[in-house]
Amino acid sequence: MFVSVVGGSRCSRREAKLAEEVGAELARRGVTLVCGGLSGVMAAACKGARSAGGTTIGILPGSRREDANTYVDIPIVTTIGEARNVIVVCSGQAVIAICGEYGTLSEIAYALRHKIPVVGLNTWSLSKGGQLDSSIIIAQSAKDAVDKALAAIEGRGD
Amino acid sequence: MFVSVVGGSRCSRREAKLAEEVGAELARRGVTLVCGGLSGVMAAACKGARSAGGTTIGILPGSRREDANTYVDIPIVTTIGEARNVIVVCSGQAVIAICGEYGTLSEIAYALRHKIPVVGLNTWSLSKGGQLDSSIIIAQSAKDAVDKALAAIEGRGD
Amino acid sequence: MFVSVVGGSRCSRREAKLAEEVGAELARRGVTLVCGGLSGVMAAACKGARSAGGTTIGILPGSRREDANTYVDIPIVTTIGEARNVIVVCSGQAVIAICGEYGTLSEIAYALRHKIPVVGLNTWSLSKGGQLDSSIIIAQSAKDAVDKALAAIEGRGD
Amino acid sequence: MFVSVVGGSRCSRREAKLAEEVGAELARRGVTLVCGGLSGVMAAACKGARSAGGTTIGILPGSRREDANTYVDIPIVTTIGEARNVIVVCSGQAVIAICGEYGTLSEIAYALRHKIPVVGLNTWSLSKGGQLDSSIIIAQSAKDAVDKALAAIEGRGD
Repeated sequence: MFVSVVGGSRCSRREAKLAEEVGAELARRGVTLVCGGLSGVMAAACKGARSAGGTTIGILPGSRREDANTYVDIPIVTTIGEARNVIVVCSGQAVIAICGEYGTLSEIAYALRHKIPVVGLNTWSLSKGGQLDSSIIIAQSAKDAVDKALAAIEGRGD
Repeated sequence: MFVSVVGGSRCSRREAKLAEEVGAELARRGVTLVCGGLSGVMAAACKGARSAGGTTIGILPGSRREDANTYVDIPIVTTIGEARNVIVVCSGQAVIAICGEYGTLSEIAYALRHKIPVVGLNTWSLSKGGQLDSSIIIAQSAKDAVDKALAAIEGRGD
Repeated sequence: MFVSVVGGSRCSRREAKLAEEVGAELARRGVTLVCGGLSGVMAAACKGARSAGGTTIGILPGSRREDANTYVDIPIVTTIGEARNVIVVCSGQAVIAICGEYGTLSEIAYALRHKIPVVGLNTWSLSKGGQLDSSIIIAQSAKDAVDKALAAIEGRGD
Repeated sequence: MFVSVVGGSRCSRREAKLAEEVGAELARRGVTLVCGGLSGVMAAACKGARSAGGTTIGILPGSRREDANTYVDIPIVTTIGEARNVIVVCSGQAVIAICGEYGTLSEIAYALRHKIPVVGLNTWSLSKGGQLDSSIIIAQSAKDAVDKALAAIEGRGD
């Protein structure tokens, strides 16, 4: 199984800890981690996955494999800049979004557009016409996020 | 000047009317319209621009120029699917978002990521940590949206 | 009608003169010029088109519209790097290749892959299994190249 | 180490056998195989790699992970169509091209553009101004191709 973790390339220590726990929990469940391959939440999630013996894929925006954080096992060198965000999410069977800025928002949007389940940890919330969009599944902890992502994948029969 | 208009490929009659007014108003100001080139809000905006003598650019997702709506003057054939959304917004100096679904949300996200001003008409509203993100400039009418988009471009010294 | 002109971002004076003549001849025939928007053959072709009153589209690799050469009327800001080569060729109904390096070769390849006619002026020649591939239509002059590109478009019923 | 294998999505039995041998030889050397993830040469190379206990990555053009051939371990879902060709080659440290059509030619072109070594087995040959381009390293067998690809990677200090 493949789950994408998205979030900012800069993040607070608290966010990094959360991301690391998500990565470790995914690895313990035997899930391969997909991310954007850079720093911040991406590096922390990869670090967590590695520490628990998991495999990590980094979908890089640039043309240099050396840009990948040191916890990436499989660097994918896209050369297409931030347009690679759609690849990050579509290569997962579910997405876990941790905090994040507008890049993360674009990833949430693409995931929902492609009917890929999105689990959110302290991330964006969306509304339209004064009405909250409830498509993002809210999680309360790293373990809860992974539980909900895996349940969503099974629910879709993916 | 170039302004991108984004919104759903399906839309209500009311939304289409709004898009048409935006397109016409942009054309009257001498602005070239950029959009995704398909149906719904995109076609209505192009129709409005054409009716006022404006020029329209359609950044198409597929590989067939025939997919462009009949009001597109310049079809750009990207072949890269919805990853073309980043091109739609980055080819404008400002973005006007009209209603829209998750594809539109990805366009708003990319625009804000690239510091391109976004004016919203009945579109998504964003919040994080319970706090409203006020980056989207709210407009009340087609004319107001165009006024605010042009003011934002001038403010950026673009 | 839309014709793409492809070639190196660096070129000799002689190549630039050829590109300028191609651009001017396209403009005289009422054809809109599509190119990669940068320097070398692209700038020379745009300059020629402008001098004859034509319209020029520059499909830029980066995220800054200021990267366009000064003869581009319509900058398309793709942000996807050299992956934009497929957009340059697919946005034309025929391609004229002038000399060029490996980037130009990728454009010739994509054009042939998408069954878009390619006219070559001192450009790559291809063979496989010792057999010359005759898909590239050879031209002897700028005027000849434009004649052959337009004939090919009409032949395809495009 | 990562090596990309490129070639047609349709191929003769003889080409498939060659691709399978290349895949198996890469796996025996501990190299991870990168390819476009579809049928023909891609499937045969993945089959060979799997048979020798190797790992296979398929960079898919579409939006469905189910499009991957059954020998792909890690499907990357790009959604960007044939523009994904640049990702296939840039994710390898060397490229082995087996026969192939214009899509393969675009991959050879992108690889050379990005200074990634290309080893050719019965594939395209390129010339310009009547002069053969000798950038493609010619191989005579599957084993020879893998030897030369790995030597080229080491030569680059990659």
